[in-house]
Amino acid sequence: MPVPEPFARSLAEASAPLADRFHATRALMEALVAPLSDADATIQSMEDASPAKWHLAHTTWFWETFLLRDHAAGYRLYDERWPFLFNSYYEGEGARIARFSRGMLSRPSLEEVLAWRAHVTTAMEALLGREELSSLVELGIAHEQQHIELLLTDIKHALFCNPLGPAMWEGAPKPAEERVAAGWHEHPGGIALIGHDGFGFAFDNEGPRHRVLLEPFALSNRLVTNGEWSEFIEDGGYRTSSMWLSDGWAWVQREAITAPLYWRDEEYFTHQGWQARDLNAPVTHISYFEADAFASWAGMRLPTESEWEAIGQLGDPASGNQLDRAEPVLPGGSEGMFGDGWQWTRSAYLPYPRFKPAAGAVGEYNGKFMSGQFVLKGASCATVRGHSRASYRNFFYPHQRWQFTGLRLARDLA
Amino acid sequence: MPVPEPFARSLAEASAPLADRFHATRALMEALVAPLSDADATIQSMEDASPAKWHLAHTTWFWETFLLRDHAAGYRLYDERWPFLFNSYYEGEGARIARFSRGMLSRPSLEEVLAWRAHVTTAMEALLGREELSSLVELGIAHEQQHIELLLTDIKHALFCNPLGPAMWEGAPKPAEERVAAGWHEHPGGIALIGHDGFGFAFDNEGPRHRVLLEPFALSNRLVTNGEWSEFIEDGGYRTSSMWLSDGWAWVQREAITAPLYWRDEEYFTHQGWQARDLNAPVTHISYFEADAFASWAGMRLPTESEWEAIGQLGDPASGNQLDRAEPVLPGGSEGMFGDGWQWTRSAYLPYPRFKPAAGAVGEYNGKFMSGQFVLKGASCATVRGHSRASYRNFFYPHQRWQFTGLRLARDLA
Amino acid sequence: MPVPEPFARSLAEASAPLADRFHATRALMEALVAPLSDADATIQSMEDASPAKWHLAHTTWFWETFLLRDHAAGYRLYDERWPFLFNSYYEGEGARIARFSRGMLSRPSLEEVLAWRAHVTTAMEALLGREELSSLVELGIAHEQQHIELLLTDIKHALFCNPLGPAMWEGAPKPAEERVAAGWHEHPGGIALIGHDGFGFAFDNEGPRHRVLLEPFALSNRLVTNGEWSEFIEDGGYRTSSMWLSDGWAWVQREAITAPLYWRDEEYFTHQGWQARDLNAPVTHISYFEADAFASWAGMRLPTESEWEAIGQLGDPASGNQLDRAEPVLPGGSEGMFGDGWQWTRSAYLPYPRFKPAAGAVGEYNGKFMSGQFVLKGASCATVRGHSRASYRNFFYPHQRWQFTGLRLARDLA
Amino acid sequence: MPVPEPFARSLAEASAPLADRFHATRALMEALVAPLSDADATIQSMEDASPAKWHLAHTTWFWETFLLRDHAAGYRLYDERWPFLFNSYYEGEGARIARFSRGMLSRPSLEEVLAWRAHVTTAMEALLGREELSSLVELGIAHEQQHIELLLTDIKHALFCNPLGPAMWEGAPKPAEERVAAGWHEHPGGIALIGHDGFGFAFDNEGPRHRVLLEPFALSNRLVTNGEWSEFIEDGGYRTSSMWLSDGWAWVQREAITAPLYWRDEEYFTHQGWQARDLNAPVTHISYFEADAFASWAGMRLPTESEWEAIGQLGDPASGNQLDRAEPVLPGGSEGMFGDGWQWTRSAYLPYPRFKPAAGAVGEYNGKFMSGQFVLKGASCATVRGHSRASYRNFFYPHQRWQFTGLRLARDLA
Repeated sequence: MPVPEPFARSLAEASAPLADRFHATRALMEALVAPLSDADATIQSMEDASPAKWHLAHTTWFWETFLLRDHAAGYRLYDERWPFLFNSYYEGEGARIARFSRGMLSRPSLEEVLAWRAHVTTAMEALLGREELSSLVELGIAHEQQHIELLLTDIKHALFCNPLGPAMWEGAPKPAEERVAAGWHEHPGGIALIGHDGFGFAFDNEGPRHRVLLEPFALSNRLVTNGEWSEFIEDGGYRTSSMWLSDGWAWVQREAITAPLYWRDEEYFTHQGWQARDLNAPVTHISYFEADAFASWAGMRLPTESEWEAIGQLGDPASGNQLDRAEPVLPGGSEGMFGDGWQWTRSAYLPYPRFKPAAGAVGEYNGKFMSGQFVLKGASCATVRGHSRASYRNFFYPHQRWQFTGLRLARDLA
Repeated sequence: MPVPEPFARSLAEASAPLADRFHATRALMEALVAPLSDADATIQSMEDASPAKWHLAHTTWFWETFLLRDHAAGYRLYDERWPFLFNSYYEGEGARIARFSRGMLSRPSLEEVLAWRAHVTTAMEALLGREELSSLVELGIAHEQQHIELLLTDIKHALFCNPLGPAMWEGAPKPAEERVAAGWHEHPGGIALIGHDGFGFAFDNEGPRHRVLLEPFALSNRLVTNGEWSEFIEDGGYRTSSMWLSDGWAWVQREAITAPLYWRDEEYFTHQGWQARDLNAPVTHISYFEADAFASWAGMRLPTESEWEAIGQLGDPASGNQLDRAEPVLPGGSEGMFGDGWQWTRSAYLPYPRFKPAAGAVGEYNGKFMSGQFVLKGASCATVRGHSRASYRNFFYPHQRWQFTGLRLARDLA
Repeated sequence: MPVPEPFARSLAEASAPLADRFHATRALMEALVAPLSDADATIQSMEDASPAKWHLAHTTWFWETFLLRDHAAGYRLYDERWPFLFNSYYEGEGARIARFSRGMLSRPSLEEVLAWRAHVTTAMEALLGREELSSLVELGIAHEQQHIELLLTDIKHALFCNPLGPAMWEGAPKPAEERVAAGWHEHPGGIALIGHDGFGFAFDNEGPRHRVLLEPFALSNRLVTNGEWSEFIEDGGYRTSSMWLSDGWAWVQREAITAPLYWRDEEYFTHQGWQARDLNAPVTHISYFEADAFASWAGMRLPTESEWEAIGQLGDPASGNQLDRAEPVLPGGSEGMFGDGWQWTRSAYLPYPRFKPAAGAVGEYNGKFMSGQFVLKGASCATVRGHSRASYRNFFYPHQRWQFTGLRLARDLA
Repeated sequence: MPVPEPFARSLAEASAPLADRFHATRALMEALVAPLSDADATIQSMEDASPAKWHLAHTTWFWETFLLRDHAAGYRLYDERWPFLFNSYYEGEGARIARFSRGMLSRPSLEEVLAWRAHVTTAMEALLGREELSSLVELGIAHEQQHIELLLTDIKHALFCNPLGPAMWEGAPKPAEERVAAGWHEHPGGIALIGHDGFGFAFDNEGPRHRVLLEPFALSNRLVTNGEWSEFIEDGGYRTSSMWLSDGWAWVQREAITAPLYWRDEEYFTHQGWQARDLNAPVTHISYFEADAFASWAGMRLPTESEWEAIGQLGDPASGNQLDRAEPVLPGGSEGMFGDGWQWTRSAYLPYPRFKPAAGAVGEYNGKFMSGQFVLKGASCATVRGHSRASYRNFFYPHQRWQFTGLRLARDLA
């Protein structure tokens, strides 16, 4: 089910009218769940993941709470019992169900949630033109786009947990073209400017823009591939403790990890079910621990966030293999710094100098997660085109890998 | 949705034709899920419980495996991938999904499972008249009736886990009448015959029939009520360690137990949602630990299985508040030994003298559970009328309480 | 270190003066810890086990609390802080440390605990002649003898957890003689009297004496041996789910069980360190689950408690391989119903008809454990000779096996 | 028991002969365990901690393995079974016991371990003069000094777990003097040089020295005190989610944290048992989560590692309240950047640019822990004087707090 064309085009264009981008985002999420049954949209496969229906509802709760409730005169909540169900983690917004109980919400049904979405989308019309709300609306759009990506990765995991390995979309992916020469982006070091410059929307954690000092380095011009990962496995990568961080090695042994998530024999699990694995495509669904071990094995290292960003600033963040419409997503065709898979950096997710969280409940958005996680840069095949930026800071715990997470190698220059 | 009348009547009559009872049972389970959406039927709220859809499918798997596959010439499996999904615990029938993954089966859909049911029910027609299969068919009917009860208790738990507390059926239950005089069934002791006598169907664990020696005792003529349980609570029942078994006290403290399952203020959760608690109705949803503590508090004890059965043999197992059709179930109106709630005995679930499990995979049915559990006797409001017998041995672990489990007091006579 | 001879002799003779038996028991426990360092006596290897020092102290707490504090005029507690440390599970006696914190008690030292023991033993002299206290003293002696056995099995486990496998006593055990003909004790069935007759000391759980009805059966005249257990292993016993109870099979898989506890290649761990395994000696350190599976494999069954007792009443409970002095203990030489290893029965540990727990805190002794455990009969090589009786009811959970637990086969007679 | 004076003096003087510093360090660790019994030295109170005896042995294993075995011709291992027991985490050195089994090592005894120490110390004499080994010897000394601090914090925790709260040393601490004016170290920002300069010993993780860019900032001239922490508590610090990192808030709720570790009413637990809490002394035994929440509450922030080091380079790392001899340790008297408590920074423990781990098994020392932990700077009252440096990088997980961990506030300058 295609997103209506005028909307689809608006997604990637920051210059498109705000209202268009709002509608395009809302419509895209709804188009993505079209292949799902009510039951598909209800199940939760692990604590890290949420049901598809929950994503549909939670993003709607965001608009209803922070825009309609607070700014639309006389707006009444669609259902007063639902905020308890669909608040995610905003302590400032009161109690909410335990995270792992999201999978118990067979009611409201998918149909009821979609009706709520339509109601809220319509009610939002009146606010989209109000200048003083535009930054909140921008935030809401960005928030909903994040949940579009999570919806895609969460439902992939849920379908994977079904021994039947059901496909969300029929058909088979087309193979990636063989990559020709791998090369390097070289950087002479020196002072670079990092972080968002304040023109246009960004999350609070991307700023303030600040100077960093870099030593000369090089970044690979492409992501590590499935074929290269197979060599790592064949060379005993998962059995050689000296390549691993201590926590990583403990994780490998405790969880009996021997390959990326979703690998099985010569196949991998995709939104189109089990498919032959494409050796030329970028590897994804690896943890930080695995990415770091691979880099050690390859005699290189992961980039820092600043290094990545210094190079990434030169690219077009709306380029590459990213999400434009409700279609199967799979790494495969990217060139450039964005698309295919998020790229682990060796930088912990910590506040930038003089970072201040946004005020109010929306300020709980980013700052409170600044411990124990690593930054990922770029964008994946499941990222809404136009959503990411060079300054974008994605973050996950080092063992997590149900996102489209891959790696790009770095090395020091003399 | 009523079960077609001729079928409903057949359920409780052992003399009804086998084919009628087969169809009535199949139809009843299907009628019970009529109020459920695909999503309702898919969710699994805890490891002890299974999705409604799984019950529909597992019972169908039973017929397809042990009857059609083994005895219907040329029968081909409806879907070769499904036995892996819907085998419960029969090691002899091969691998199966981990118990707590049953909640991941959004596919096949409820509709597909119902289509499979219809297919299997039709295919079974040809076998229902074959004399040599009649005991297997009886077993299958009894098996499906057990899953009818589990379906009702499992979906109740799942709906309870939703903060909205959705009702499966609309309306409110009608109150139980006030019980008048409590009295006692007295028994002089001596040798009694216990266990199934071999006439008609019984599970293998009910036999062989054997003699037991009883000391004089009395059984209450009714179950303990919600009102009496409230007195126990008010008297500090859940805070007084001396009334409890050691394992029970540890459970109370670890789980912060302060009331039966499903109690909240003056309400309890039912298939009709949250309702005012009926003080005159029998208490249910209590664990063995709680039943034993209550009996200690009351200065009495729980009956043994033999004592219960010696009295229960005199009653009509098809009487009382049991399940006849697809309607809300709730303890309330019973007299006699059967109905309202299963009754905890102080007897461990162990083999009778000279017990031999049935041969083959169906022999895995009962014997292998003979450690750590206690016997319950009688029948509940969710038991298909006609399913239970005086010799029937229900069994659960002492902490479990999501079934309709209650208690009847006993005492020694001089 | 031998127990002084007059004391040792008193242990097994019920007719010996109470004071002699008191002193013999106290002295025996102290003699057993002579090979242990303060550190050996302090460590706790698992929640089920307690440090040797704790056993020394807890038994002393028992005398100080229930005898000296309550009955010796003017007695003052040796140290008012110690009851909190050394109460085991008597809720009636107030708070106590979490069970798994017993291993944190490096203070008081072994020497201090032994000094406390000496103080309490001396103080007890004045009470030993008081007739009205004699049953409490009997209880205290029996209680201390139980802890002697636990001390031996707990320290064995602790030393086993040290990769050095240190020996508590030097030297090697002498081999068991080869058993000649295995035979059967046959019993014609009928009414038997079971439970303690009230002459002499018994725990409250052994009574009241009552009639039971037995069907004709036979008991093996000896325990299953290590050699026979090896055959079970070689025949795939631990890999064949059909032989196991459901909970047992889950335990085997979860814990990766492949042999009795303490087996390693052709050796087993003993109080004398790692030793060649004696094929003719009775197997011990098996769980109920294993015993039950072995019996299934052998085409037989475990005896019921009543069956065992009906035969056991004919034997001398002070015969066989039991504990007389502070020497290494190991199954090996027994004939008869007592000694070598406790014997799992298929009877759950439940109250006898009309059982009433003893009044007061000492009444917490047995009754509150009556759920989830199985009865063992007989006596082991670590049981103080004179401690057990035909009516004795030992009990453990079906997965536990750090005691000297073995099995004797039973079968039905026509 | 004092360390022999010439040795004590050598500890803090980098210019002292290597052999003197070796002997001083060995002697200090032995002097510290003088108040401990064999049992005290054997117990392990949690997985994070190790028994005192284990520290004595592990440090000896280090010398025996990396110096004597590898470099002393003809040296034979004192006991070939012991490396398995006393290797900590060096995968390159083969198998070792599970970390939480260290508390099972009642054998070898404390006396045997001390004899081994003496043997190895003597054997080391011959190597101390060999120039090519001096950096390995330096590493061994630094390694042993780290374990001296761990020994002190681990035994503190073990004694705390004993409800008797035993004191390791008698007497009461003397109170800290009231701090007068709190002030600020201001820094104008700009390029600073960070990391070890290569003169003298440092751990591999401290280098290479490199440039960083700082924004203007100020650091408090003293640590936060117990009195200030009490205000935080009284102001609801532990109950206000908005002050906490998300992982920190989850930890507070899961563990029911309401105060620093070792606080009880107006007391805290010390090596001298329970003592009145000194309000003027620096707070310690706080987690990163707590430090970060306090800084939020105070309207400030934690320093980065670079900020701290830029200021710390100006101070004397051998000044302040640090460990000189075997005496009770307690925060209290420091001025300056070093001593009293390690100071949490907001910097994750990650590799410096161009960091390369040392080659061989000793290279497992630091690099493999570079995920999930935060850097602490300075030194504590339990740090051997002379051990720390401005470039020193201590690191722990954000929830850990059994070390002497405190905080120094930072703020931005315009």
